[in-house]
Amino acid sequence: MNIRDRVEKLRQLMKENQMDAYIVPSFDAHQSEYVAEHWKCRQWISGFTGSAGTVVITLEDAGLWTDGRYYIQAEKQLESSGIRLFRMMDPGVPSYTEWLADVLKEGSNVGFDGNVFSIDMVKKMERNLKAKGIELKMNKDLIGDLWEDRPEIPKGPIFTHDVKYAGKSRVEKLNEVREEMKNKGANYYILTSLDDIAWLLNIRGADVPNNPIAIANVIVAEHKCYLFVDSCKVTHLIKLELEAEGIELKASAEIQTLLGNLSNVDAVILDTNKTNIRLYNAINSSTKKIESPNITTNLKAIKNEVEIKNLKWCEIKDGLAMVKFIKWLKNSVDKTEISEIIAEEKLEDFRREQEGFVGPSFDTIAGYKEHAAMMHYKANKETQYTLKNEGLFLIDSGGQYYDGTTDITRTIVLGRLSDEQKRDFTLVLKGFIALSSVKYLYGATGSNLDVLARQPIWQYGLDYKCGTGHGVGFFLNVHEGPQSIRNDNNNVILEKGMIITNEPGIYLEGKYGIRIENMMLVVKDEKTEFGQFMKFEAITYCPIDLAGINKEMLTESEKQWLNNYHQEVYTKLGPYLNEEERVWLKEETREI
Amino acid sequence: MNIRDRVEKLRQLMKENQMDAYIVPSFDAHQSEYVAEHWKCRQWISGFTGSAGTVVITLEDAGLWTDGRYYIQAEKQLESSGIRLFRMMDPGVPSYTEWLADVLKEGSNVGFDGNVFSIDMVKKMERNLKAKGIELKMNKDLIGDLWEDRPEIPKGPIFTHDVKYAGKSRVEKLNEVREEMKNKGANYYILTSLDDIAWLLNIRGADVPNNPIAIANVIVAEHKCYLFVDSCKVTHLIKLELEAEGIELKASAEIQTLLGNLSNVDAVILDTNKTNIRLYNAINSSTKKIESPNITTNLKAIKNEVEIKNLKWCEIKDGLAMVKFIKWLKNSVDKTEISEIIAEEKLEDFRREQEGFVGPSFDTIAGYKEHAAMMHYKANKETQYTLKNEGLFLIDSGGQYYDGTTDITRTIVLGRLSDEQKRDFTLVLKGFIALSSVKYLYGATGSNLDVLARQPIWQYGLDYKCGTGHGVGFFLNVHEGPQSIRNDNNNVILEKGMIITNEPGIYLEGKYGIRIENMMLVVKDEKTEFGQFMKFEAITYCPIDLAGINKEMLTESEKQWLNNYHQEVYTKLGPYLNEEERVWLKEETREI
Repeated sequence: MNIRDRVEKLRQLMKENQMDAYIVPSFDAHQSEYVAEHWKCRQWISGFTGSAGTVVITLEDAGLWTDGRYYIQAEKQLESSGIRLFRMMDPGVPSYTEWLADVLKEGSNVGFDGNVFSIDMVKKMERNLKAKGIELKMNKDLIGDLWEDRPEIPKGPIFTHDVKYAGKSRVEKLNEVREEMKNKGANYYILTSLDDIAWLLNIRGADVPNNPIAIANVIVAEHKCYLFVDSCKVTHLIKLELEAEGIELKASAEIQTLLGNLSNVDAVILDTNKTNIRLYNAINSSTKKIESPNITTNLKAIKNEVEIKNLKWCEIKDGLAMVKFIKWLKNSVDKTEISEIIAEEKLEDFRREQEGFVGPSFDTIAGYKEHAAMMHYKANKETQYTLKNEGLFLIDSGGQYYDGTTDITRTIVLGRLSDEQKRDFTLVLKGFIALSSVKYLYGATGSNLDVLARQPIWQYGLDYKCGTGHGVGFFLNVHEGPQSIRNDNNNVILEKGMIITNEPGIYLEGKYGIRIENMMLVVKDEKTEFGQFMKFEAITYCPIDLAGINKEMLTESEKQWLNNYHQEVYTKLGPYLNEEERVWLKEETREI
Repeated sequence: MNIRDRVEKLRQLMKENQMDAYIVPSFDAHQSEYVAEHWKCRQWISGFTGSAGTVVITLEDAGLWTDGRYYIQAEKQLESSGIRLFRMMDPGVPSYTEWLADVLKEGSNVGFDGNVFSIDMVKKMERNLKAKGIELKMNKDLIGDLWEDRPEIPKGPIFTHDVKYAGKSRVEKLNEVREEMKNKGANYYILTSLDDIAWLLNIRGADVPNNPIAIANVIVAEHKCYLFVDSCKVTHLIKLELEAEGIELKASAEIQTLLGNLSNVDAVILDTNKTNIRLYNAINSSTKKIESPNITTNLKAIKNEVEIKNLKWCEIKDGLAMVKFIKWLKNSVDKTEISEIIAEEKLEDFRREQEGFVGPSFDTIAGYKEHAAMMHYKANKETQYTLKNEGLFLIDSGGQYYDGTTDITRTIVLGRLSDEQKRDFTLVLKGFIALSSVKYLYGATGSNLDVLARQPIWQYGLDYKCGTGHGVGFFLNVHEGPQSIRNDNNNVILEKGMIITNEPGIYLEGKYGIRIENMMLVVKDEKTEFGQFMKFEAITYCPIDLAGINKEMLTESEKQWLNNYHQEVYTKLGPYLNEEERVWLKEETREI
């Protein structure tokens, strides 16, 4: 069945169910960014494989809403699907609810599977659509009815994450959560986001590629904690370990029963941005519902001292893999046939040599020449390039290690560059350094600081259509909130102990893509009569390709930052390299 | 009666009225920033004269909440008043409602005059206080009962603002408003903010010093517009002119009757941030209320072509006054006795020489040496300094002209400066230039850009405890929303045609204060495949004192910006100066 056939079948089913539109988002029942195959309904119905996007099908029309990272890719993948691309970050483009309010007649019905819609998403739709008398039908998973060979919900084994890595025991974490529940006047707390559950219970799983999380739900009560999970995923030993710390295992479906059995003296905290509408509707209607961002999300975002120590070691290991890879690549590119996929695999091999490596933290983006202009490019055997000794090769990758999660991008100069390429490489570097070196007053948010990375790029009429930075989990999801660095109005203060990436870029469709990315730790700077100043400590250790730089475009202080950073890279990695590698790294990190 | 006696009398009255706390904000019944004497209740009860601040009196305690601009001043003015200062911008300082929730017992009553509280302020208090069973009593103006010689509500005459200045007729403006009312499904629109009323009806008044507005309320209906105003303020001629354009005059009190007589098929738009709670409560309870930021606020913020043309001419006139003043000051400072007040008056004299000058746009801040460390300093005869040929003199002032409102700060070097003073002058200039010269992608807000002005200052562990920029009215209030440049999360996009100030500073208590301020116009830059780029055009024309600059701290591009700006200042003002003045200006605007 091709995409057009699938969409037509869906339309038939919509008619049978009296639906005038059907919405397919990219989420699972836990509002995860990356989902197991079972939940890739949006990909199944549209052919679009990006990590973010929503498909809306009406009886006459169909659209995909996605963000700037995926414009180029979506355009390609939607070709001849009959589904139109809505570039949702561009001015004047309606949101899908605005679009539905516009194209549907009064009295229409919009259907979707409430399991994969958060409470907030549904409330927003209700606000926009109810004014026009459009009703929501949220209990039908029509894609599930059509998708014949749909993969099952995964049942990967759960394993524990030792406190020597995590730095804080389950009991400590649960106590912190309960303290906060008490402050908010709640005796129950529903936790459905998978990375939060993994963090809270110091468990990991293997249900979603690259994300070491286990599909489950949690309810924290005053004295008990319930873990709703498929029992086949938990060994007897782990069950005993959890029970010894007050965590009771229950079958997945029992969460509905427990929520239905709450009483009118109970008060339950839930995150309306994370909890799905069908779970919400399962809560006894007389129970008090306290809406609050997940308590665990803030606790998890601020890394503890043990996590930070572990992560810094993990970053050294990851830097060693990157250095070995770049050395190999530069030396081999004109000697052996290296495709994008071969390069990607080689880097993974180098990571695999490192102690505690579990797997990649996301699908590696390894793009040569114009492939790198697709921000979330994934090489495939049919269309990939063979690398030559010219131009730019962008590689964005990361590792899951027991002692941390890494995310790094380097754009590697394989040979001769045009003046324009050098200029743009240097502009990206200037933005990267501006953010890396900022000293800011405590209280600033990522949206206050984003402009620093963009300004040198804007100066030339260029921009990158994505955020500048995101939080990173600790042996968890590579994208982790609540902090971010974007040109939006996220009001989360960048706190000491948070991790944030710094990844400005320039992407010229059909030409090339450049991105430089480090992970940074938020640390304190001086305290003066004007307040506590803060700064970023770069904790990714890997040289930035000096061959890409137009030195005349750098100020003295920019050169100084780069020289200091390269000195730090050499000092951190040098002791673990052999003589030949060390000599190579010395040259790559030389002063400019 | 001294402040302590006033507070004690208030406490007696609170007891008689069964109130455990009483709140006195700085607003009038229109949520104005600057208010007529009649509404200076907060000043009367506390002695604090700043433009922003809230006093809360309980039976045992009393506090003033104000922002960073006023910390130093408030500390002084509250001395021996028994009222404590709450530095509301500092971390960990509770808001007054949080404080009340903390100190009051369950079942307490909090009183205030609902006329001077917006709907939003009351809703926020209700959220914070109702949880603790604290009730609000909003119908008593206890200060009014105590204040024996309270000035009357002013009755200044209303005059019209010719369309040759305003650029758009009343009818055009009303049509735009009605269009928006229709989009939002409303047939009535309550407009209570005084600058919006003045803008909408092309009228001006004289009810508040420095703000050419008239105390009034407006209701726009589908075919009628009602202006509720004291009839003695409007001449017969103006009445006829307004009536000819569909604007009907009504007595002030009739607004309550009209709102009460609305029906259940009516829908009324109101701005919950601007409309007071007693007007809100007067609306028939069956009438639909549509909450929306004032329609006029956005229309008014984007200046039309005529306004921009007028304003640029107005800025030339204002620049001429400034240049004559600075020349006079520098030449006279060691020859005649010049006090802060004499300087202030002299500048006003130079402005008065300019065509169309009406009066100052706010109380001039003329501070020598450490006086300038008080951001909103007002010189008085007892404590003012005499200017000498050393150190820094800060003068922040502006004019109301028929063809625009100006706001400018220059910090003038009167003689020898310390290295620290020069460093700080240059840091402020660097921040000022960074914001002046930014090229940004359309969509950025002031909170996205604020960091540009602060970063050079933060680098040295310094900061200024106020915003970086504010909108400016057109022959209207010197502070005008909705745009601003602050380190907050204001999500208003900076649109083409908006005016915004750029005024970073450094204020060292007991030492000195430095601020440089221009008004800037938002204009388009190039459009590329990445979108529409925007920039700022400086429309204040006045040299920046080169004697304050440590040239070694400026980059080449900063010097270039400054040289270009100074060239522009000379070109704009030169033709209107005499030979001697022109020679002087040539030297002040020389290349560095």
